[in-house]
Amino acid sequence: MAKGFTVWFTGLSGSGKSTLAERVRDILLERGMKVEVLDGDEVRTNLSKGLGFSKEDRDTNIRRIGWVCHLLTRNDVVAISAAISPYKAIRDENRKLIGRFVEVYCECDIDTLKGRDPKGLYEKALKGEIKNFTGVSDPYEPPEKPEVVVDTAKEDIDTSVQRIIGTLEQLNYIPAGDGRGYSDDEEESIKQRLKDLGYI
Amino acid sequence: MAKGFTVWFTGLSGSGKSTLAERVRDILLERGMKVEVLDGDEVRTNLSKGLGFSKEDRDTNIRRIGWVCHLLTRNDVVAISAAISPYKAIRDENRKLIGRFVEVYCECDIDTLKGRDPKGLYEKALKGEIKNFTGVSDPYEPPEKPEVVVDTAKEDIDTSVQRIIGTLEQLNYIPAGDGRGYSDDEEESIKQRLKDLGYI
Repeated sequence: MAKGFTVWFTGLSGSGKSTLAERVRDILLERGMKVEVLDGDEVRTNLSKGLGFSKEDRDTNIRRIGWVCHLLTRNDVVAISAAISPYKAIRDENRKLIGRFVEVYCECDIDTLKGRDPKGLYEKALKGEIKNFTGVSDPYEPPEKPEVVVDTAKEDIDTSVQRIIGTLEQLNYIPAGDGRGYSDDEEESIKQRLKDLGYI
Repeated sequence: MAKGFTVWFTGLSGSGKSTLAERVRDILLERGMKVEVLDGDEVRTNLSKGLGFSKEDRDTNIRRIGWVCHLLTRNDVVAISAAISPYKAIRDENRKLIGRFVEVYCECDIDTLKGRDPKGLYEKALKGEIKNFTGVSDPYEPPEKPEVVVDTAKEDIDTSVQRIIGTLEQLNYIPAGDGRGYSDDEEESIKQRLKDLGYI
């Protein structure tokens, strides 16, 4: 019986968290795991209704998502969170609570994000029409020791997905899959990173 | 692999929900199931911080617990909720969302509850020191078709627990256990109730 773990995406709005979360979910489901993605409208409706974007409310939201990930993880489900989660301290609290926790930092420079901006959010935030917008008018604290960094401005999505899957394999959270999607060099680089950070 | 379900306790403060929830959890854990009890301080801290006791806030709280039970249930975990959950419509919403849902109504007359009152809550509520106290100054809507009714003023806890376990067995949510804790007559009465209500 596979044990649960949490994949915690963090990064600015538009940095690719949800897209990557769904791709990772699909691969894990195909491998027979139980997976829940906590993301977007469903979380806002079902878990965080009434919360705003002050630091306190953001912290409450991220702690709450963390607690649900904790319940799922300890019952052998893979929980995937795709919230911005701007504050390091609260992400680290969740890491401590959950234990089996893989942090994926979706890095992406702000100019690329402004260029993408499919919902026009950055434009509105820059005009001051949205307050407390992370990366524009609200802080974002990047993780110091994320298990995975993906740079969605520079690398294609398959590369990012395969690095995440490779990391889960190297951590022995999932068995090595058939038809590995990454090279020996990439595997070596994943291993080296996890060793350098003290995760393996 | 056992499938998940939700046992939803409902009833006034002090009616025995938490005690029964823990007893049922222990029996299901002994039978090798995965079980989470959503109750009390842990829920208030981790899920419902900031919510009060207005009808709207209570509804939000009960919907939120229901959503977490839904996530657990669809991942083959047994979720047990022990919240007062005073409003029928929201409990029924949760029943619909979750599907595999067993409602346990903890009946107990108010005089018995006032007599027990281990935390002095009824005394304070009757003096007006606690506002919106269910059963005193806030409504409680009993369920119309609960799978199980336990009367904790009149029956001992083992009888209540065995009726709940017997109901889970009759619904085929759990396999029949060794050393059944209830008589043939009790089994017949459980079956008859579930048939009369259209649950089997």
